[in-house]
Parts: sequence; structure tokens; C-alpha cells
Amino acid sequence: MPLQFSSWTCPLPLKHYPTVVMGHGSGGKMMADLIQHLFAPLFNNELLGQLGDSTVLDFPANGAGPARLAFTTDSFVVSPLIFPGGDIGELAVNGTANDLAMSGARPLFLSAGFILEEGLPMETLGRIATSVAAACREAGVQLVAGDTKVVNKGHGDGLYINTSGLGVIPSGLDIAPNRARPGDAVLVSGTLGDHGMAIMSVREGLEFETVIESDTAPLNGLVEAMLAATRGGEHTGSPIHCLRDATRGGLAAVLNELATASGVGIEFDERRVPVNTAVHAACEMLGFDPYYVANEGKLVAIVPAADADAVLAAMCAHPFGQQAARIGTVVAEHPRLVVARTAIGGSRVVDLPAGELLPRIC
Amino acid sequence: MPLQFSSWTCPLPLKHYPTVVMGHGSGGKMMADLIQHLFAPLFNNELLGQLGDSTVLDFPANGAGPARLAFTTDSFVVSPLIFPGGDIGELAVNGTANDLAMSGARPLFLSAGFILEEGLPMETLGRIATSVAAACREAGVQLVAGDTKVVNKGHGDGLYINTSGLGVIPSGLDIAPNRARPGDAVLVSGTLGDHGMAIMSVREGLEFETVIESDTAPLNGLVEAMLAATRGGEHTGSPIHCLRDATRGGLAAVLNELATASGVGIEFDERRVPVNTAVHAACEMLGFDPYYVANEGKLVAIVPAADADAVLAAMCAHPFGQQAARIGTVVAEHPRLVVARTAIGGSRVVDLPAGELLPRIC
Repeated sequence: MPLQFSSWTCPLPLKHYPTVVMGHGSGGKMMADLIQHLFAPLFNNELLGQLGDSTVLDFPANGAGPARLAFTTDSFVVSPLIFPGGDIGELAVNGTANDLAMSGARPLFLSAGFILEEGLPMETLGRIATSVAAACREAGVQLVAGDTKVVNKGHGDGLYINTSGLGVIPSGLDIAPNRARPGDAVLVSGTLGDHGMAIMSVREGLEFETVIESDTAPLNGLVEAMLAATRGGEHTGSPIHCLRDATRGGLAAVLNELATASGVGIEFDERRVPVNTAVHAACEMLGFDPYYVANEGKLVAIVPAADADAVLAAMCAHPFGQQAARIGTVVAEHPRLVVARTAIGGSRVVDLPAGELLPRIC
Repeated sequence: MPLQFSSWTCPLPLKHYPTVVMGHGSGGKMMADLIQHLFAPLFNNELLGQLGDSTVLDFPANGAGPARLAFTTDSFVVSPLIFPGGDIGELAVNGTANDLAMSGARPLFLSAGFILEEGLPMETLGRIATSVAAACREAGVQLVAGDTKVVNKGHGDGLYINTSGLGVIPSGLDIAPNRARPGDAVLVSGTLGDHGMAIMSVREGLEFETVIESDTAPLNGLVEAMLAATRGGEHTGSPIHCLRDATRGGLAAVLNELATASGVGIEFDERRVPVNTAVHAACEMLGFDPYYVANEGKLVAIVPAADADAVLAAMCAHPFGQQAARIGTVVAEHPRLVVARTAIGGSRVVDLPAGELLPRIC
């Protein structure tokens, strides 16, 4: 029987991997290899090459000038489905709303594709769908398209959710990963590592004095507040150069991606990075570095030094940015390298994580 | 540990099902129940309520009148991943391009979310990604956003793909499932049942004199040709009332959905429905009714009787509509019922399929 099958030659950097392994989904080097050597050559186009959290589209509006839209997609395979501080439904809405917000877009419309495993309790589906609806209300987005598929028992893990999102970008904004410039300030919107360690502590059955809860939250309101803080100032052009939510691969992955895209170095001071005490303890116990642990409600912003104080103040005044901090600076030295100043006065290179740190965190 | 969990009360019609079963993904009555009683009450908004293959959005364009966009999402879980006539990658692109085209939209942008199972041969991923790229070129769409997740071995089935799509709707078009009117003609774009029986014949290891191949194809070009055929005619308003691609649930599901949405009856003549000889034989052998079998490159159009000849001629002149046929008529009698005139002169009600006919067909 003539099964039709495209021919494909495995590129050299992927030859070490005859099969897909968990690390290919990690947000680290292995995933970057997969994208660079497999997907990018096949799908290459200027738009996909933006490599932002969402893609900015100049859309042909009917009989008018183009509208600038942001478009993004994300699949959620987190295990367990429910965890302290949230569940897969809330995560799926916030994650995609956040990817849109990281382009400076106002998230408007979401789609949801459910892949259900045969045997999933109807009660679980009902509760998670309820959570999706509540998260949409909180983020101010409308769920406008959906799809449901069912796979046989043993071919899923309860449910997976894909959300794709559409937002509109206010004119004049140009937030992109390649816009970091030497002298810019590096800000984070709060404590790091909460989401990843919330998941891990459930999986490992760890108990701490304080329960570690996921930080899952919609960040579009925070971004709006940050943008508003710089309006009317003397600086022309986009007041914010780069925005990224620090999900898979954590702070380390985000800073490395921005340094690489902009061809700059980044330095940050470890003593200034906010980390919850319980997260710090859990990381020590399990041997994790909180800079590599996933967040689901925290962003990294790179802003001109002159705007940093105003933006930071706006962040601290917002419910989802109360513990925001200025942690470092973009530098001309050591382009494409991220360097941490340690508590004892030394310095170390903070590299992209290699492979799998925390599987199925989102 | 305070696991946060939404409360949810199972609505009565779903109480028969303590868990999700395969039929909930079938495109039939069970899936309609899930949507009606679980998703719709939670996610209800006017846009989602359009219930078309894609959702039409009046998008706020910057400083201009609104642009009309179509937005859709679809997850693909077909098994096997490769089948006669196509593979999951090609299916994922064509399926979403077709959902956009069914709103009359010109498909422009696609996202792809890959859920990979640990252990998937890299070669398979490479070949399927190659197929995605080729299908994008054929359909004339750009893949502009992507996401990759990896799940543990035993929690997937090689790979699942979600595609979401964006298209722009030419002004003046109003194609919607509730626009069928008594007197309208019912057209199909070619032979029915090919995709479903191609999948089934591989799964069952059946061999026929002719290999049954999937009909997977992008239908946006065909729709453009159909629209062009009616332009300049004397009819005002949208020259095409309804368009649907006949995927899960086949012709029967599409006609039932259109009859219900428009509050009309539909009659068709079984002798006029094109079915390939090998598909007919396979259906007989396996006990399937070809009207319920999925297609991936066929559409159903409902057009004013006065336009039917012109539209049909345009379809037959297109490579993906060569065997198009006028199979029936919209009637005022028996609203919401679909009735087939049989070869021996009788008639029978063609109902929505109940549950699972062919699992994981797309």
C-alpha cells in the first residue's frame, strides 16, 4: 500500500537523538536545537522569525490601513491537572493572555482546543472548564472558538488544552526581543520560581511550613500600567524595549534569549532577585536553581534606564507586581552572555538550561 | 494542602456519563450534548454562539473601520499518523484552512502546537513537519506561531497537532449556518467518505482492488472560484448562503447542523450523491453508511436555486470539485429534519450520528 510520506534528512545536530525525549519540550538548549534545526528551516518566514512570545501581524483591514495584531499559540500538558494555586484551565488562559501582553498587545480573543482522554471524570472536565471561564473573565478575554477531541485511554493524561490568542497592539509600540540596548535596566515583576516549585512539591509530596502556590496570573493589566507610567515622558519610541514572561526555563532562559536576540550582554545581581523563602528552601532541598524554575505570572522587562524608576513604581503599585525589583543592566561587554553577580562578590555565567529540568510544568 | 478547585454541578443530560468516552469526540449527538450542556453555558458569548466552522470577528483596526476576520482552532489526533493519501501534518493545515474558507475567509496565518510523545522517532517528526510546510505552501498560508510540548511515553500517541487559523473575510460576504432558505439548492464538491474509509482500511488491514486514499485538500481555492462565479450576477447579498466541510460526522452531520441552525428541512436524493466504488464496497463490508463517514477535502454548499448552475459549473471546473453534484433542496416542510430519497423510491430520515462511528479520524 503506497503510504505517502515526505522525505526528510535529519540535520546533523539532531542525529544524537533518534527519538524525541522529554528535554525537547523543556524550553532549554535541546528545544532550541529542535526549533533551530528542524522547525525553522521548514517553516521559515519573516513573521515566525520574530521569535517573540507572540507574532505581530500587519493585518490587511478592509478598506483601511493595516491593523497590528498579535497572534500566539500554546499547548498545556501540566501534570497534575490541579495544583496549589491553580489548575490547567486557568494556566491555559493566563499563559496565552500573557504571551499576547508580552508584545504590548491587549488580549481580546482566545480559542481553546481540548484533547480529552477517554475515562476523564466528567466532574474534572466540568470544573476545569469552569476555571477556564473564570480566568477569561479575569483576563478580560473572550473565548470565541473551540474544539474537542477524545483519545483512547492510555493515549493522554486526563486532558491537554491548546489555547491560541489574538490581541490588538496600540500604535507606536515596538516591543521585541532584539531591542535591548546597553545601559537599559532589567526588571522582574516579583518572586521567581513559585509555579515550578508548587508543581514539584505536589509531585514529590513535600510539605513545607508554608504551602508553595503557583503564581499563575494574567499580566496584561500589569503591562498596561507599565506602559501608562511612561506615557507623556520625554522619551520617544517605545518606552519598554523587551517584555517576556518567565515560563519554561525561568529567568535564565528569558535573559539568554534576550541577550542573544539583541546581541548584548546582561548582568544581574543575585541579591536583588526576589525569591520566596519556601521556594528557596524547596530549591535547596531538590537541587534546583530558582533562576531556571518556571513562573506563570511573572515577567521580565528591559527598559531605558531613564524610565526604570517610573516603570518599577507602576509595577509595585499593581497587585501582580508588588514585589517587582530592578535586578540588573544590559551591557555592551560579553555579548550574548548572561552573568550573575553572586552574593559573595564573585560572578558566574548563567547559561541556557540544557535539557529537561522540570517536565510538564505547563 | 488546599488544592483550589472550581465547584461545578453536572447538568442532568451529562449524568449518564460519569467519565468522558470516545463518543464525546465524534461529531455526533454525544459531542453536541457536551457542547450544549457543558461548554456553552460556561463560555457563552455571542461570538462563540455563531457555531460556524470559524468565528467571525469584527476586529478594531487601528484608527480605521473594523476588519472582519475569521478565527478557528482544531486539534488533530488521527491514528495512524500516516495513511494513504496524506498524514497528520497535511491534515492539520488543510483542516484549519478549510474551516476558515467555510466562512468565506481567505486563510492567511496559521499557528501550530505540537504535543510530542517521548520516543517519537525524530525521522517521523521531521517528515510530518515537512508535510506541514508543504501543505502551507499549497494552501497559501503562513505558519506564524508555534509551540512544542513533550509528554511522557504512554501519555500520547506519537504526536498531536493543534492548528489555529486567521483569515480575512471580503466585505459583503455573509456565509453562516443559519442562512439556508426553502428553495435553496444543496451542492457537494465531490465523492463522499474517502478520508474515513482510507483510515479504516489501514486500521482493519483491508485490501481492495483500488487503494482508498484520503481526500485531504485545501478548499480555499475552490471557495474563491465559487464566489467568483456568482459575482456580477443580479443577486444581491451573499451569493452563497452556507458552506461546511463535511469532516467528523460526514454529510449527515453537516446537513443536520444546517437544518437545525436555519430552522428548515433538507431533502436529498441518494442516487445523486457521489461515492467512489471502492468506498462503497468498503462501507458495505464494514457496515458503514457513507453519509456519516468523514471527509477532509469536501464541502457542502447551500446556494440560491438561481445561482446553483453557475456555482456547480465553477466547482466542476476546479481540481478539487471535479465530481461536484447538486444533491438536494432546502424545504419548508419537516423543519430541522434531513430526509433522503432512496434509490428504490422511498424516503428515510438521516439523523445526526449518535456517538462514535470512527474514532480518531482527524
